[in-house]
Amino acid sequence: MQIEPQAFDRVLSSMCTEPHPVAREAAERFLATNPGDPGTYPSVTALEDEAVSMLGDIAGLEDPSGYIASGGTEANIQAVRIARNRAETRTPNVVMPESAHFSFQKAADVLGVDLRIVPTDDSFRADLEAVRSCVDEETAMVIGVAGTTEYGRVDPIPELGEIAEAVDAMLHVDAAWGGFVLPFTDFEWHFDHAPVDTMAIDPHKMGQAAVPAGGLLARSDDLFDELAVDTPYLESTSQATLTGTRSGAGVASAVAAMAELWPEGYERQYVRSRNNAEWLADALEKRGYEVVDPTLPLVAADVPKSTFDALRAEGWRISRTGTGELRIVCMPHVTREMLASFIGDLDRLEVRASVPVMSDD
Amino acid sequence: MQIEPQAFDRVLSSMCTEPHPVAREAAERFLATNPGDPGTYPSVTALEDEAVSMLGDIAGLEDPSGYIASGGTEANIQAVRIARNRAETRTPNVVMPESAHFSFQKAADVLGVDLRIVPTDDSFRADLEAVRSCVDEETAMVIGVAGTTEYGRVDPIPELGEIAEAVDAMLHVDAAWGGFVLPFTDFEWHFDHAPVDTMAIDPHKMGQAAVPAGGLLARSDDLFDELAVDTPYLESTSQATLTGTRSGAGVASAVAAMAELWPEGYERQYVRSRNNAEWLADALEKRGYEVVDPTLPLVAADVPKSTFDALRAEGWRISRTGTGELRIVCMPHVTREMLASFIGDLDRLEVRASVPVMSDD
Repeated sequence: MQIEPQAFDRVLSSMCTEPHPVAREAAERFLATNPGDPGTYPSVTALEDEAVSMLGDIAGLEDPSGYIASGGTEANIQAVRIARNRAETRTPNVVMPESAHFSFQKAADVLGVDLRIVPTDDSFRADLEAVRSCVDEETAMVIGVAGTTEYGRVDPIPELGEIAEAVDAMLHVDAAWGGFVLPFTDFEWHFDHAPVDTMAIDPHKMGQAAVPAGGLLARSDDLFDELAVDTPYLESTSQATLTGTRSGAGVASAVAAMAELWPEGYERQYVRSRNNAEWLADALEKRGYEVVDPTLPLVAADVPKSTFDALRAEGWRISRTGTGELRIVCMPHVTREMLASFIGDLDRLEVRASVPVMSDD
Repeated sequence: MQIEPQAFDRVLSSMCTEPHPVAREAAERFLATNPGDPGTYPSVTALEDEAVSMLGDIAGLEDPSGYIASGGTEANIQAVRIARNRAETRTPNVVMPESAHFSFQKAADVLGVDLRIVPTDDSFRADLEAVRSCVDEETAMVIGVAGTTEYGRVDPIPELGEIAEAVDAMLHVDAAWGGFVLPFTDFEWHFDHAPVDTMAIDPHKMGQAAVPAGGLLARSDDLFDELAVDTPYLESTSQATLTGTRSGAGVASAVAAMAELWPEGYERQYVRSRNNAEWLADALEKRGYEVVDPTLPLVAADVPKSTFDALRAEGWRISRTGTGELRIVCMPHVTREMLASFIGDLDRLEVRASVPVMSDD
């Protein structure tokens, strides 16, 4: 019996999506290439340079350094690794808001750095006073999130940059999910808005590239010197990536997607996703759920566990925040029809006792 | 102008290859899946269980734990991470032969362990006396290579296991490249031959899967407990992989390739590759080059740099060992015709002064 990949028609939990047709075609064409071995596969190395240059355009960085990583986790680990290796102390710490992705916990374990987690404020953004009182002369990096995993919030990046500069720490921005929608908002989040040193920005999330295509950007090339190991038996001389063999499919699909969609296509998608998120938030509010107001296309609402479980049993791929709220990511594959069908199921399966069901017209 | 992927008809340096047609088909079908999010993509998680089980068959392990990693580098880093996290000392060391892959240097930097590199013997295998005198009570792991990157040699794995056991260290075997040919040789290299704790064994090398499909196996599940971080907002509860989002294409293609080729197809390929390596070694020897006798399908020979450069200028993708020898990997895409054409170019470009060219008939 052949196992089939799931359809996307009930996937509301993923931060990945169906690759754009041009991204899929490029991935298939470059399936048998390895940008980790540039001496053997020079054409995909040329594509990777293009990918990094285009990511720089999106992230406000004129002459970017970087590479296409396996995803945001690798990019985040590598950023922390740069900071740790540059730190003058043997006991460096890294300061981040509690809203940051769990990959930083992984980075802290892998790299042996002290992770200092500070609370968020009432709007789910890094509490600046808490960050300020947490940094010290051993702080190697301050982390801000531009599009949090749980609520889609954007930390005050310029202010975090000031705090980082005051203690001579690096500033890393995790825009793994948010990077391809933020250019169409008023948020200040990128290299040209603040003294950002490194950034995670993933083509395989809102960028509609095929997995695996994460992005790590750095303001200057010398930051990668910290990571380079010698590479005998490759005709290149050193390697700064975390993994060795890498996916040429991911690289090629990132270039194809960005060439096709940046900026107009991404902007149209952003508007669609934002409108869907607003429609969904409105529909949930009308039904009496407490909704975290979406600032990017991600909706969280206080739906009871029993209802959540009933919806999962219907085949909906949904997930919850750390504090138990239903969390829906309005990715490109998520249509208004899917959301309407989801709300229809929610109404049908509704098990709340006290709140009356209302129409959303 | 569209950038095209290189053809494989001159690639003699890569440890990756063209994916088998069934592996390519599976990769394309599962391009939009993420085994890093099993609650959303359960079908590819089921495939990953199959992949690990089949890798266990190949590596002599009845009830294997493991996962499909981005490649051998991730598998090696993760094995060292397990050893470091289990060590009772805060200053653990890891002992390996100088023939081990440079990914262990990366692991040492990332993980902050003391890497102790010992020489190899006259046959390019780990010098057991040197290993024995290097381990101590702070040794967390001994590393053996089953198919070295430079010369395709297999370290004395059972003996390394004895040394590791004597100091209560783990034994890791790097069979990233060798794992899919060693079952057809008399070498003792796997879990049933020695007290191996962890192993890197990559479907995307001799296993003919699509990149990225590395493999990390462990003798018991609890070894992965060392690596687990909590995963809020995924419906799974923890994650032991190094990367987060992962390639479902790699997983699906690994299963497809192993289902198609294990064991007969891999054995046929091994015989073809071995015969090609022997033919090539013979052809080079007849021309007066000093050749490192191939024990697995990998040939190294002392070809001068000027000849090497001339061959690269002809479009041959070739690479060199750390000490400068030409190094050719007889992967599945490498045919006798390619090698004959390569030798033809070598004869034509020959710039040696003193050694007469001889016929290889």
